[in-house]
Amino acid sequence: MSGGVTIRKAGREDTALILQFVRELAEYEKMSDQVVADEALLEKWIFDKGKAEVLFALVDGREAGFALFFHNFSTFLGRAGIYLEDLYVRPEYRGRGCGRALLKELAAIALERGCGRLEWVCLNWNQPGIDFYLSLGASRMSEWNTYRVTGDALKELAGRDQQPGN
Amino acid sequence: MSGGVTIRKAGREDTALILQFVRELAEYEKMSDQVVADEALLEKWIFDKGKAEVLFALVDGREAGFALFFHNFSTFLGRAGIYLEDLYVRPEYRGRGCGRALLKELAAIALERGCGRLEWVCLNWNQPGIDFYLSLGASRMSEWNTYRVTGDALKELAGRDQQPGN
Repeated sequence: MSGGVTIRKAGREDTALILQFVRELAEYEKMSDQVVADEALLEKWIFDKGKAEVLFALVDGREAGFALFFHNFSTFLGRAGIYLEDLYVRPEYRGRGCGRALLKELAAIALERGCGRLEWVCLNWNQPGIDFYLSLGASRMSEWNTYRVTGDALKELAGRDQQPGN
Repeated sequence: MSGGVTIRKAGREDTALILQFVRELAEYEKMSDQVVADEALLEKWIFDKGKAEVLFALVDGREAGFALFFHNFSTFLGRAGIYLEDLYVRPEYRGRGCGRALLKELAAIALERGCGRLEWVCLNWNQPGIDFYLSLGASRMSEWNTYRVTGDALKELAGRDQQPGN
């Protein structure tokens, strides 16, 4: 790993720290009001149901940042890819290669698992993030926009008055 | 289902038809040159590895369109979501509610499985698609852009001279 940064895979015992990183990232993204996750939900969906995986970047043995990812799928490539949902490095550890080390590890995991792509999204005002991603060889897929149905609109589309379960 | 449209889940025996729909969708998106998938890859990654699921919309008992989806993950919600990778209806069956029936079924699956969101992307020149999605109650997440590392850039980022396996 670059510059004294090491990577380790998170386990169930790291759930509280994962939630802490999620909250710090949401604060950076000015979206703290959208965080409804708690430890029980994260433990259930990540570690019981296996719907995501988490890596930590460590500096001097301390968790400096994290990456949460899952498998997506490309029909054009006919195979899975890796989708990076969250990437966050604590401010006091920035500039030491943590983000690069996490992305490098994800690229290696993608190749090991036979995946064709590594993808993620970035806010269009996050210029430091954009510059960093382009420097890694990433392409910006500007012609695509994401659409989302959630909350009451999801229930309405389903034609139900049903609450999502936990 | 709306207007005589029925939905069925695809099985392994439908792999050739899935590939045919993928190719027709790629042609509509002007991206046929990007399709490297074949039947063996799709069967392996969808039905052996379980990395995606497929629904067909049927009109008069004939497969008129398809939806390919997988689970994504929201750290803010602390749970999985449903991500619609491909949605396609053959031209001769458009305007009969196939797309709406597929999205309605996906919304119902999301609620049944306790997922918080249904998401997808749309090309920014596909105005009929955009109008349709907004009419369903979807929000456009215009502040996000997708970034992708693939091919040689993926190997370079991983620091390897390794070919992705099949």
